[in-house]
Amino acid sequence: MLSIETFAVIGGDLRFSYLAGQLADDGYRVIAVGLEHADLPPGVTGCSRLSQAIDLSDCLILPVPVSTDGHHVNAPLSKLALPLDALYRTVRRGQVVIGGGLRAEIAAALRERDAIAIDVLKREELAVQNAIPTAEGAVALAMEELSITLHGARCLVTGYGRVARVLSRLLAAFGSEVTVAARRCSDRAWATVDGGRAEDLTRLRQPLDFDVIFNTVPHLLFDRDVLTHIDPHTLLIDLASRPGGVDFNAASELHIKTVWALSLPGRVAPKTAAGILRDAILNAIREVTP
Amino acid sequence: MLSIETFAVIGGDLRFSYLAGQLADDGYRVIAVGLEHADLPPGVTGCSRLSQAIDLSDCLILPVPVSTDGHHVNAPLSKLALPLDALYRTVRRGQVVIGGGLRAEIAAALRERDAIAIDVLKREELAVQNAIPTAEGAVALAMEELSITLHGARCLVTGYGRVARVLSRLLAAFGSEVTVAARRCSDRAWATVDGGRAEDLTRLRQPLDFDVIFNTVPHLLFDRDVLTHIDPHTLLIDLASRPGGVDFNAASELHIKTVWALSLPGRVAPKTAAGILRDAILNAIREVTP
Amino acid sequence: MLSIETFAVIGGDLRFSYLAGQLADDGYRVIAVGLEHADLPPGVTGCSRLSQAIDLSDCLILPVPVSTDGHHVNAPLSKLALPLDALYRTVRRGQVVIGGGLRAEIAAALRERDAIAIDVLKREELAVQNAIPTAEGAVALAMEELSITLHGARCLVTGYGRVARVLSRLLAAFGSEVTVAARRCSDRAWATVDGGRAEDLTRLRQPLDFDVIFNTVPHLLFDRDVLTHIDPHTLLIDLASRPGGVDFNAASELHIKTVWALSLPGRVAPKTAAGILRDAILNAIREVTP
Amino acid sequence: MLSIETFAVIGGDLRFSYLAGQLADDGYRVIAVGLEHADLPPGVTGCSRLSQAIDLSDCLILPVPVSTDGHHVNAPLSKLALPLDALYRTVRRGQVVIGGGLRAEIAAALRERDAIAIDVLKREELAVQNAIPTAEGAVALAMEELSITLHGARCLVTGYGRVARVLSRLLAAFGSEVTVAARRCSDRAWATVDGGRAEDLTRLRQPLDFDVIFNTVPHLLFDRDVLTHIDPHTLLIDLASRPGGVDFNAASELHIKTVWALSLPGRVAPKTAAGILRDAILNAIREVTP
Repeated sequence: MLSIETFAVIGGDLRFSYLAGQLADDGYRVIAVGLEHADLPPGVTGCSRLSQAIDLSDCLILPVPVSTDGHHVNAPLSKLALPLDALYRTVRRGQVVIGGGLRAEIAAALRERDAIAIDVLKREELAVQNAIPTAEGAVALAMEELSITLHGARCLVTGYGRVARVLSRLLAAFGSEVTVAARRCSDRAWATVDGGRAEDLTRLRQPLDFDVIFNTVPHLLFDRDVLTHIDPHTLLIDLASRPGGVDFNAASELHIKTVWALSLPGRVAPKTAAGILRDAILNAIREVTP
Repeated sequence: MLSIETFAVIGGDLRFSYLAGQLADDGYRVIAVGLEHADLPPGVTGCSRLSQAIDLSDCLILPVPVSTDGHHVNAPLSKLALPLDALYRTVRRGQVVIGGGLRAEIAAALRERDAIAIDVLKREELAVQNAIPTAEGAVALAMEELSITLHGARCLVTGYGRVARVLSRLLAAFGSEVTVAARRCSDRAWATVDGGRAEDLTRLRQPLDFDVIFNTVPHLLFDRDVLTHIDPHTLLIDLASRPGGVDFNAASELHIKTVWALSLPGRVAPKTAAGILRDAILNAIREVTP
Repeated sequence: MLSIETFAVIGGDLRFSYLAGQLADDGYRVIAVGLEHADLPPGVTGCSRLSQAIDLSDCLILPVPVSTDGHHVNAPLSKLALPLDALYRTVRRGQVVIGGGLRAEIAAALRERDAIAIDVLKREELAVQNAIPTAEGAVALAMEELSITLHGARCLVTGYGRVARVLSRLLAAFGSEVTVAARRCSDRAWATVDGGRAEDLTRLRQPLDFDVIFNTVPHLLFDRDVLTHIDPHTLLIDLASRPGGVDFNAASELHIKTVWALSLPGRVAPKTAAGILRDAILNAIREVTP
Repeated sequence: MLSIETFAVIGGDLRFSYLAGQLADDGYRVIAVGLEHADLPPGVTGCSRLSQAIDLSDCLILPVPVSTDGHHVNAPLSKLALPLDALYRTVRRGQVVIGGGLRAEIAAALRERDAIAIDVLKREELAVQNAIPTAEGAVALAMEELSITLHGARCLVTGYGRVARVLSRLLAAFGSEVTVAARRCSDRAWATVDGGRAEDLTRLRQPLDFDVIFNTVPHLLFDRDVLTHIDPHTLLIDLASRPGGVDFNAASELHIKTVWALSLPGRVAPKTAAGILRDAILNAIREVTP
């Protein structure tokens, strides 16, 4: 197992400020660069020079996503420019670099410098744990938009991956009537085990008389044809990552109220989301064989 | 059992517009007066004259509360003045008048005219069912204010009446750590049965290390002394009806974030709240012996 | 508050042996008389003379029920005769005597001697907590008798008191389809809040197509007429205390499989039942004003 | 999709009698051979000649397991000898043969005759759904053996596959304190999501202070060393299939009460287990491309 004493947290949103503080609470030395518009938590040292932060640390934590423009580290809470090229030049042989959604060219550039590049979004336990803030955020959205209680609400959940499972069980705990539409036999079996009613995806081609529909399938499931089967009082919440699962133009024309809820963990529970990142980062480091 | 054909819904907020529509869906004739700024649902006849509405109906539905100034029916969605005196003059012998929080003098004035006055807020099943939108609203508030998920959140619920019970179980379903502080042995026993940890109210005189505290006890439980035991990161949500259970001035001085959440059912789920009123009204009518 | 140093546990079943041990674990001195066929737990002193046990102790714990023949303490785990008269003669002024189902004449005889007589079965928290072993025992019985899983089983629960509530929620957690039949509006409201389907007791006069029916109402609800509406494959479990809620002769003639499950807590979970008794006894002592 | 009109159910235990009846209820013609000691359900035709049953049917259903001696169909409810050789001789080209735990040589022999051999135990949805009767059976066993309620019981579950997940959530619904010990990070993440406390398997090398331990890992996890860490009052229930996960000799020497619970679905809920088989069989047939 690698021995890490100092982390550099480079860029990122509010989650990464919490993350820096949590690592400091764990007893690590933590340097933050590119987070100067957040209040730095106690124990975290701010730094304005990228190269210095890299030099002083054993492990670099890059944001999720690492870069939005392909050239700079994504740093919405900073005025600094943090060029990836500068990062590549400064990173050391054997230094660990962990980020989220590490694109192939970034990973390749880091490995060319003999750094250890890790994509934290590939950690299964992170995806599992993120299902909680996502499901909670989806429930909060539904409560905000509906004029009825979730207790007694007729809910359809499409797909039955991690988010759908956590969400369906939470809805059932509220006393909603939960129907799950999923393609695979085994997913439908799980939905039944979890207490819901399960149907095939062909169910979407029939009238859909629900108070709220939560989509978790990341391809165009709710095309114009399916949308015509939806009661116009229904709320449609799309939890699928890009490109999403809803033809939003058609939904708008059909007057179906639609919410595309992206990146819920960081928005609804940044502190919890930071803790999930921290756990996954520490697990990843533990598995690196130096 | 009384035979009711026509209801007059007089004043009230958005819930009463939904209620009028639900009674119409049940097959009753429904006249609405004092709701002209709401979109009247299909099947409901608007009317601008109070005396005419009373004359044409078998049962009058007054809002919750019936009156805020003691002289007029509470009608926030109307420009009409609806004087209680005019109501007293027009009401008929044997006519049923149902309202919420019917003050003694209003009930007396109606009974003097030999009308049958019913306070719907005294219906136990209404209080029970309203615990659901109240608990859902409380959970929604907490999710909005906290930077962590309810899963794993340390929650304290004070009191263990209807709202507290529904809320505690909902929080447990989220995966919160729920502690209930209640005075009565049997309430604490129920809290334990329901899966929480139960403590005496004296617990409040010790350090209170919780992420969120929900008070349901309607007297001054959170006085300055108790408030000094609360961690300043804690969110304090007061669900108690007037006069509330928190010394808000002291809380403000101690920088404890406090939300006084009144009348949640009508605000978070007006349509469900209307259905709860309708059920209680029809139950009450069923029990009248003419 | 009274100061108790020594308890005498007099007679009783296996629960009272556990109870003696739990009180010893709490630091009390405990003398047991009339429990010699149970293995006495560590810290409990056996004693073969009733008068001596009474003399040495501050509080006497009698069984549930105190007596089955009206003349002797109920002591199924003993060969000793423990006459109530001897008890009355020996008990001291101000001594606390706690038993379950303390009949009027026993309480009167004790009070004549200026002892403090307490019926532990009147403690509300005991009744609440006993709902758990009762509900668990009912579920265990159903699992043993049915050839299907409780998941998906169609269950009817009659009444909605303490046991019915705990049972209904447990069945719902198994994934059963729970219907509650109860007379009071507010009980039906609670059943709905708790996630079940609620119906009036008149429901029993229609065909009853259930896999299992749990009765909790302690009067003759399941008379011959109601029994004729039950599908002969249905299992009928009567949880009501004497005289029970089922016409067992008629049920037998109609070939309806019926189980009358009495006193489940002591049978299915004697150790937990003992702990519930102990809590209630200590609560009762705490409330005595000497 | 294949068109099946007639099933032959050949051998098997009580489940297969239920299964025959359920297929008949679905509208299929059903012939049963080798089930003569069970009461055949309405609509099922008994047959005493294997070759005739095969000739008359489109699909043969063999038991779980297909054979215990390698030479005959497993038929505990029959006096008939049903030799596999006779089966191989009679089976037709294109005929579907579905059994559970179809050993390689049986599948090969069938395919040599150009029959379509399907192992129903390989259907994921069957494994998922069988987790329910298994978990219910495990809970029933624990309730029978323990002198405490599951509410409040300290439970350890090892492994976090299908059975462990369903079981853990059921235990949590009872109000047990559930700890899950699992090797994989993502399994521990799921256990946390599901409301339990999660620990690594190394936890087993420390004192294990639990009321009941449920093992679901099918290799020798509870060796002599681990067993020495278990409190002798603990109940150890092994749900793992052969070879099991417990050193039973060592457990016996250490006076640890151990139950090896094999094949729970067919034993605790044969009717439900039959329904699960039927669903999986019909799903499998639907996916055969003729």
